[in-house]
Amino acid sequence: MDSSAVDDVLLLDSWMSVFCARVRIALDEKGICYQKREEDLITGHKTSLLLESNPVHKKIPVLIHNGKPICESNIIVEYIDESWKSEPPLLPSDPYLRAQARFWADYVDKKVYAASMKLMMTKGEEQEKAVEEFIDILKVLEGQLGDKPYFMGETFGYVDISLVPSYFSFYSYETLGNFSAEKECPKLIAWAKRCMERQSVSKSATDPHKIHELLLKYLKGIGV
Amino acid sequence: MDSSAVDDVLLLDSWMSVFCARVRIALDEKGICYQKREEDLITGHKTSLLLESNPVHKKIPVLIHNGKPICESNIIVEYIDESWKSEPPLLPSDPYLRAQARFWADYVDKKVYAASMKLMMTKGEEQEKAVEEFIDILKVLEGQLGDKPYFMGETFGYVDISLVPSYFSFYSYETLGNFSAEKECPKLIAWAKRCMERQSVSKSATDPHKIHELLLKYLKGIGV
Repeated sequence: MDSSAVDDVLLLDSWMSVFCARVRIALDEKGICYQKREEDLITGHKTSLLLESNPVHKKIPVLIHNGKPICESNIIVEYIDESWKSEPPLLPSDPYLRAQARFWADYVDKKVYAASMKLMMTKGEEQEKAVEEFIDILKVLEGQLGDKPYFMGETFGYVDISLVPSYFSFYSYETLGNFSAEKECPKLIAWAKRCMERQSVSKSATDPHKIHELLLKYLKGIGV
Repeated sequence: MDSSAVDDVLLLDSWMSVFCARVRIALDEKGICYQKREEDLITGHKTSLLLESNPVHKKIPVLIHNGKPICESNIIVEYIDESWKSEPPLLPSDPYLRAQARFWADYVDKKVYAASMKLMMTKGEEQEKAVEEFIDILKVLEGQLGDKPYFMGETFGYVDISLVPSYFSFYSYETLGNFSAEKECPKLIAWAKRCMERQSVSKSATDPHKIHELLLKYLKGIGV
């Protein structure tokens, strides 16, 4: 099936969500026409469409394709790859390489977000430890990237999509945690900049200063 | 590819791991000949083969297929389904149904194990709350199951494989948490018993009393 011209594709989205950015990047890579509806992460108000479409987690992103909702960002990206067979493929076709791609996207999911939250929510010694943990995770990712242009080799795909939205917040992580990601992981940052040259990625990128300002307001609000 | 007769398939395994049981069930469903090597979860000693094969997480299960390691149980099950095209398929072929199967296996992964650990590691009021949470999760799963024989419909597959190994420890959860899963979720328990009639599942099932005894010893050891 490659019927993006006639398909009804709606994304329940937020401009500031790293998970929504994954889906926007995948849709843009495939050249799929879609509409988006912004959910308000700041007030936390959830639309009835979101609650009906994702009654289990009640979270964005949700992709509604011809009336059918698909939830969880990495699962949506795989769905997009399987539903729109147009170029470029986002996952490799070889089962072993597909398993590798899933392993690293899963690693990103399990490690990066939790570690970044810890880094932002702590102070002093606890934060220093959180920064160390965060850098260790980046170094594991850099080790896997090696000298390849993208995580799975020559082409941008699933693993890159899972990780690159986190890069949009690196300015905040570095400022709050007082470290330089580029100094610690130069190859990873070169990869991120390479990704940023893609229209699909740069179009979804958030202004680092705007994100940082919002974050400071949020942290102040919760007393961190 | 359907070459289980000539393939070299080795599972780094433990008889007591719910995650390893998923992989054993998938291999048996597909009729794949494999060897297994037991890792010692009780002493926690990790073999050099495990450390080499899964340097990132250092955890079982690891499936080594013709020398190539695949890690993380749900990823391994998908790999098995994609590598051995023999019947039965473990995931549906339709992209939307595949996304649904992945969503529910992911739900099991994110919710069931963590909630069961909480239930076991707590006492008193905290445990009562943990039991409630655990039952709520089972009820969500039961709601998704509905009146179908298996999670995705008429055939046993990926979601069933992700959840059924947890059922092997239900005796412990019920004894420690003082509740009846059958009373709370009769359809889910009927599903579990239906699964247990399959040779692939019953072969991997652990003796509930043996698991319980080990667990009590472990909890006593860590002072719970």
